[in-house]
Amino acid sequence: MPDSALTAGSTPLVGVVMGSASDYDTLAPACEVLAELGIPYEARVVSAHRTPDWLFEYAEQAHARGLRAIIAGAGGAAHLPGMLASKTLVPVLGVPVVATPLNGLDALLSIVQMPGGIPVATFAIGKPGATNAALYAAQLLAAGDAALHDALLNRRRVKAAEALARPLNAPNAIIP
Amino acid sequence: MPDSALTAGSTPLVGVVMGSASDYDTLAPACEVLAELGIPYEARVVSAHRTPDWLFEYAEQAHARGLRAIIAGAGGAAHLPGMLASKTLVPVLGVPVVATPLNGLDALLSIVQMPGGIPVATFAIGKPGATNAALYAAQLLAAGDAALHDALLNRRRVKAAEALARPLNAPNAIIP
Amino acid sequence: MPDSALTAGSTPLVGVVMGSASDYDTLAPACEVLAELGIPYEARVVSAHRTPDWLFEYAEQAHARGLRAIIAGAGGAAHLPGMLASKTLVPVLGVPVVATPLNGLDALLSIVQMPGGIPVATFAIGKPGATNAALYAAQLLAAGDAALHDALLNRRRVKAAEALARPLNAPNAIIP
Amino acid sequence: MPDSALTAGSTPLVGVVMGSASDYDTLAPACEVLAELGIPYEARVVSAHRTPDWLFEYAEQAHARGLRAIIAGAGGAAHLPGMLASKTLVPVLGVPVVATPLNGLDALLSIVQMPGGIPVATFAIGKPGATNAALYAAQLLAAGDAALHDALLNRRRVKAAEALARPLNAPNAIIP
Amino acid sequence: MPDSALTAGSTPLVGVVMGSASDYDTLAPACEVLAELGIPYEARVVSAHRTPDWLFEYAEQAHARGLRAIIAGAGGAAHLPGMLASKTLVPVLGVPVVATPLNGLDALLSIVQMPGGIPVATFAIGKPGATNAALYAAQLLAAGDAALHDALLNRRRVKAAEALARPLNAPNAIIP
Amino acid sequence: MPDSALTAGSTPLVGVVMGSASDYDTLAPACEVLAELGIPYEARVVSAHRTPDWLFEYAEQAHARGLRAIIAGAGGAAHLPGMLASKTLVPVLGVPVVATPLNGLDALLSIVQMPGGIPVATFAIGKPGATNAALYAAQLLAAGDAALHDALLNRRRVKAAEALARPLNAPNAIIP
Amino acid sequence: MPDSALTAGSTPLVGVVMGSASDYDTLAPACEVLAELGIPYEARVVSAHRTPDWLFEYAEQAHARGLRAIIAGAGGAAHLPGMLASKTLVPVLGVPVVATPLNGLDALLSIVQMPGGIPVATFAIGKPGATNAALYAAQLLAAGDAALHDALLNRRRVKAAEALARPLNAPNAIIP
Amino acid sequence: MPDSALTAGSTPLVGVVMGSASDYDTLAPACEVLAELGIPYEARVVSAHRTPDWLFEYAEQAHARGLRAIIAGAGGAAHLPGMLASKTLVPVLGVPVVATPLNGLDALLSIVQMPGGIPVATFAIGKPGATNAALYAAQLLAAGDAALHDALLNRRRVKAAEALARPLNAPNAIIP
Repeated sequence: MPDSALTAGSTPLVGVVMGSASDYDTLAPACEVLAELGIPYEARVVSAHRTPDWLFEYAEQAHARGLRAIIAGAGGAAHLPGMLASKTLVPVLGVPVVATPLNGLDALLSIVQMPGGIPVATFAIGKPGATNAALYAAQLLAAGDAALHDALLNRRRVKAAEALARPLNAPNAIIP
Repeated sequence: MPDSALTAGSTPLVGVVMGSASDYDTLAPACEVLAELGIPYEARVVSAHRTPDWLFEYAEQAHARGLRAIIAGAGGAAHLPGMLASKTLVPVLGVPVVATPLNGLDALLSIVQMPGGIPVATFAIGKPGATNAALYAAQLLAAGDAALHDALLNRRRVKAAEALARPLNAPNAIIP
Repeated sequence: MPDSALTAGSTPLVGVVMGSASDYDTLAPACEVLAELGIPYEARVVSAHRTPDWLFEYAEQAHARGLRAIIAGAGGAAHLPGMLASKTLVPVLGVPVVATPLNGLDALLSIVQMPGGIPVATFAIGKPGATNAALYAAQLLAAGDAALHDALLNRRRVKAAEALARPLNAPNAIIP
Repeated sequence: MPDSALTAGSTPLVGVVMGSASDYDTLAPACEVLAELGIPYEARVVSAHRTPDWLFEYAEQAHARGLRAIIAGAGGAAHLPGMLASKTLVPVLGVPVVATPLNGLDALLSIVQMPGGIPVATFAIGKPGATNAALYAAQLLAAGDAALHDALLNRRRVKAAEALARPLNAPNAIIP
Repeated sequence: MPDSALTAGSTPLVGVVMGSASDYDTLAPACEVLAELGIPYEARVVSAHRTPDWLFEYAEQAHARGLRAIIAGAGGAAHLPGMLASKTLVPVLGVPVVATPLNGLDALLSIVQMPGGIPVATFAIGKPGATNAALYAAQLLAAGDAALHDALLNRRRVKAAEALARPLNAPNAIIP
Repeated sequence: MPDSALTAGSTPLVGVVMGSASDYDTLAPACEVLAELGIPYEARVVSAHRTPDWLFEYAEQAHARGLRAIIAGAGGAAHLPGMLASKTLVPVLGVPVVATPLNGLDALLSIVQMPGGIPVATFAIGKPGATNAALYAAQLLAAGDAALHDALLNRRRVKAAEALARPLNAPNAIIP
Repeated sequence: MPDSALTAGSTPLVGVVMGSASDYDTLAPACEVLAELGIPYEARVVSAHRTPDWLFEYAEQAHARGLRAIIAGAGGAAHLPGMLASKTLVPVLGVPVVATPLNGLDALLSIVQMPGGIPVATFAIGKPGATNAALYAAQLLAAGDAALHDALLNRRRVKAAEALARPLNAPNAIIP
Repeated sequence: MPDSALTAGSTPLVGVVMGSASDYDTLAPACEVLAELGIPYEARVVSAHRTPDWLFEYAEQAHARGLRAIIAGAGGAAHLPGMLASKTLVPVLGVPVVATPLNGLDALLSIVQMPGGIPVATFAIGKPGATNAALYAAQLLAAGDAALHDALLNRRRVKAAEALARPLNAPNAIIP
C-alpha cells in the first residue's frame, strides 16, 4: 500500500482524488484552479472499489496530514466521495464524472443523495464541477487567509470583465 | 459597469441576452428572426452568476429604455431568465441552452419551474426555442402593429408552403 | 358547436381554456389572478382531442373576438396549447397539468418542445404555472395600460412584504 | 391546399405522414417494409403545427379515400399522430422521431400519453418504430388477406434464420 | 394447463390478458368499453414470468381461436405484450400498468421499445391506456363492420358533447 | 464493534444486511423467502456511512464465516452493496430501497452502475427485489443441493397455479 | 427593507435562509443540528424571486457580518443558493426542497448544475440534505475549533452505536 | 432449430447469449474475462422476439447441459434475461445493452424491474456490466473451486496495483 507517498515533500492542503487515472481529464480544472491560486495540493488515484483499504487509509490520515479539503471525482455508481466522508471530518467535495451512457446522472445521484449524518458537498457534473470544487475549497481556506480572499475576489472581477468583453458575434451586439 | 452602452444608438424593442458569448450559437436564430421582421433589438451578454449587478441594472432599466420583451438564454442551472423576471415587469422569454451533459433538461427545469408570482415564458431547448421566443416577442408587439401582424401571418403561409413543397425523398412520395 | 357563446356579453381579453372541466382545479389560480387584476376573461372547455373542430374555431376567432392572450391548460399528451398556437397569432400561454402518473413531465414536454415556427409560452407544472400564466398575460396587457402596470408593481411589493412578514417557526428566526 | 393530390393514381391503403421532409430518414424503414410486402402506400408531409388545416383535411378524407392505417412520425412536442386520431377512426400508428436534444423521450410521451377516448398506437423511438409500425399495419390488413398473413409469417421465419445464421465474432461462438 | 378453457362457450374477438389478477383494476376500462360496444371478449390471467408456457400456448392458438386483437397489460419489467407478439401475428395492444415506485415509466419503456421486427402497439400508462386499447381494437374491427364504425363515431360525438356540457366551476365560465 | 456476534449460534449461509433498521420493512420478504426454503440466514444492520469499519469487518469475515451470499439493501446514495463487494468475493445481491423522494431511482443507479471489476447483482426496487434476491441466493445454493432445487421448482409451480386460480373480478373472466 | 435586523443581538456564524416560511419544515433539521452543536445561527426568509434586492443585500453583508456559511434551501426553479453565491465568497450550501410534482429533481438540478466560476455546495433533496448541510457547516467551522471537531467525532460515534443498537424486527436478527 | 449445436464439443459452464450478433461488441468483455479465468463458455445468439422457441429450448436444456450461469445481454425492451429466467433455475445475469436513443435506460429497467418470483441479477449498462457479469459468474463457480477463488483474488490484487501504478498526468500527482 502506498504509505510512503504520504510522507512525501510539500504539505498539500487539498487532496484531489479520483477513482481512475482516466478521470483526470475531468478533474484537471480543479488542479489548475488550485495551482492558479497557489494552494498546495496533491493529485491521487483512490478507487473506492478497487482499492478500498487505501481509501480508508487515505481518509483516516487526511486530518493528521493537514488536508483541509478533499476533492473527489467519480463516475457511475460513484462511492468514493461518500465513503471518504464516512471516514473523516475533513470536508469532502464530490465531482460527478461522466463515465457511463447515463451522462453523469448516475454519478450525481450516487454522490449527492447521502443519508443524514455524513455530508458530501456536491458540485456540477464534469469540468465545471471540478472548477467549482476547487474554488469552493479556496473559499473554505480563505476564511483564515485574507490574501486568498482578495485573490478570489479579484478572480471574480476578472472573469466578469472577460465575460462582458468577449466579442459577441451578433449583428446587433453591444459590447460595453 | 457598462452603463454607457445603455444610451447607445437605435432604440431596441427586444433585448436578446445570454450568459456567455458562447451561447450565441443557440441564440442566433432569435436575432435572425427579429432582423427578418424588422424589429429593433440588441444582443448582450448578461451573466446571472458572473455579473449579477449588471443583471439587476439591465432589468431595472429595461422598462424605461423601452424594451418590450427580453429573450434570455441560459444553460445548466439557468438563473438568468428568472432573476431578470424578478426585477422587471417587461415580459421575459426564457430559452434553455444545452450546456451540460444533461442535454438541456437541467436548463429547462431551472427556467420553467418558477414559483407562483414571477412568471417566465419558457420555450423549447435550443435553437427552436430561440426561433420561437423571437416569434412570440413579435406576436406581443403585433398587438399594436397591424403590419407586423400581417408579416407574421405571411411568414406562416410561406413556411407552410415550403414545408409542403420541399421534396420528399420517398419512392411513393406525393408532393402537392 | 358552441358558436352562439362567442357572441355573449362582456368582451373578454383573456381566454382561459382547458381540456376538461376536471382541469379547472389546476387552472383556478389563473382565473383568480385575472379577477383580482380586473382583467375580463372567459373560462372554457376546449379539448384538442375530443373537440378538435371547436378548438380550431376557437383559435380562428380569437383575434377577431379581441382576445389578447389564451391561457391553455392540459395534461398528458397535452396538444391543446400547441394546436391553438398553430391556428392563431394571439399569444398562447401553456400550463402543464398533472393528469397522469408521470407527474406532469409528459405534459411539460408536450407543451414546451414545440418546433421552430409556432411558439407556445410555457409555465410551471400545475397551480404555480396557472398563477404565472395569468400574471404574464397581465404583463402583456400592461404594455398599454399604466394602471395595470402599477397594479402589478404593487402586487409584487405586497407579496414581497408578506413573504418577509410571515412568521418563521424557527427558534432563531429573525423577522424584519 | 394540396387537394388535387388526393385524387392521384393508385389507391394507397396506408398513409405514411411526417411533420417535415427531414423526418423521412427515420420513416424510410416504414416505406421499405410496405413496399417489400406489396402494400400500396403514400408518403406525405403533414405538419400539425405548420399546416393544421391540411392535417384536418387529410384526416377527414382518410376513411373515404380507403386508407386503412396512417403511420405518423413526429418529433419534439409531437402532436401529429394525436391530432390525426382526433379527426378520424382510421387507426393511427405513431412513431416518435429524435428531433431534439432529449433523444425522443419528449416525442414518445407526447404521442403515447393520450387521454382516454382518442387512441394512438405508439411504437419505438426512431427507425425500429417505423419498421414496426409498417409491420403492424400489415398485420391489420392481413386479417382479411391470407396471402399477406403468409408473407408476414414467412418474413418472421427468414428474419429468425438470419439472426441465428449471422456470424458471431466470438471465440467460442456456436452457430447452429 | 388451462387448455379446456380455450374451447369454452362464446367466441371472443378480443383477448384482454394481464400478468396478475391484481392488474384488473387497471384493465377494467378496456373490458367496459368492449362490453359497451358489444364486442365479445375474454379476460384472462397470462403471466409472462410465472406461466411462460401458458403464454406461448395462448399466443399460438390466438389466430385459430378467432382472436382479432390481444390487449395485454403488465407492469414493471413488462414482457407480456412483447412475448405474445413474438408468437402470433394477431395484433397485440400493450397497456403499461403502474406496479412499481417508478410510476409506470419502466412498464412503458419495457413495452414500447421493441426492436424492429416484432411490433407491439403501445398505449398510455394506466386506465386511459386501457380505455384506448379497447377503442383501438374496436377501430380495427370496424374496418369490416359499418355498424361498429357508426357506434364509434357516435361515441365520439357523445363524449364531445359531454365534455362541453359538463359544468365548469369557474366564475366566468361559458358553457355553450 | 460487534465482533462477538460473529461467533454466535447457528451458521448462516446468507447474510441479509441493511443500512438502517428502518429498511427492514423492505427487506422482510427476503427473510421470509429464506425461512420458507429452510436456508439459515442472519439479518444485520450494516451501514456504509455510519459504520464503515463494521462494514469492512463484515465483508472481510464473510467468506470464512461460511456466508455463501450477502443480500444488501440500501436507499439514496446506496453504497452498501458496492462497498461490501469491493471487500469480498462472496456474491453480493443489491436491493434498492425507496428512501428518498426520487422513488428509488437514485438507489438503483447507485447500486447497479458499478465499474468493471467489482460486480454487484442488482434486483428490482423495493419488496419484489428483496423477494428475488432471496430466491436468487437460493438458486446459487441449489447448484449443490438437489432438494433445494426441487423446492424451488415446486415453488414456481405453486405460484403459477395460484396466479391462474386467483379469481379475476371481470365480467367475462375465464378461470381455467 | 429589513436592514435593522442585520444589527440585531447575538452574532450568528451560519445563516439558514429559505425562499418561503413554508420551506422551514424541510430546513428545520439544519437548525436543530446547529443548535445541538452550539453554533450560533439565524433563520431568515430570503426569496430570490420575490425579494431579489434583499437577497443581494443579505449576500453583500454576509462576510462583514461574520457569517462563515450560508445554508440556503429552495424548491422548483431554485435560484436562491446560486444567486447568493454570485454575490459573496462566504461558502453557500444548497438544499433542494420538494416543492413541485417533480419530487425535487428540478430543485436539485437548479442548484447543483452551476457553471464554472460560482460554486454552490449541494446536498441531498429534503431533510437529509438539511441535516447534512448543517453538519458540513460545522465541519468547516471545526477547522479552527478543536472542541467542535471533537463534538462532531462524538456525534458520529453516538449515531453509529444507535444504528447498531436499534432493534431489528427480523426473526433472525443479530444485535451486537 | 439449432438443436444439434447443443450436443457440440466441450462442456460449457457459462452461456453468453445475446439478442443479436451486433450485441457482441458489448458482450465481448464477458467472454474475455471467462477465457482469462479458464472457464468454459459458449457464445450464442438467442433472440427473445425473433426466436422465442429457441429461447425456451435453450432455457429448458440449460440445467441438464450443465450450464451453471447464463449471461444474457439485450437492449431496448430487453426481454431475453427475464424470459430465460422464467424457464430455468440456472442463475441468469442480465446485461443492459445500449441499442436505442435512450442510452440503455430502457434496457436497464426492462431487465431489473422483474416482479417477485423470477429473479434476474442485473449489472451495469454496457461493457462494464458484461465484465462484471462474467466476474460474478466466476464468483458463483468459485464457491466450489478454490483455485478459481484464488485466481479471482489475485485478479483483484493485480487490478488494484494497476490502478495505482498507472501514470497520473497531473502536475502534482503522487504515484505510490
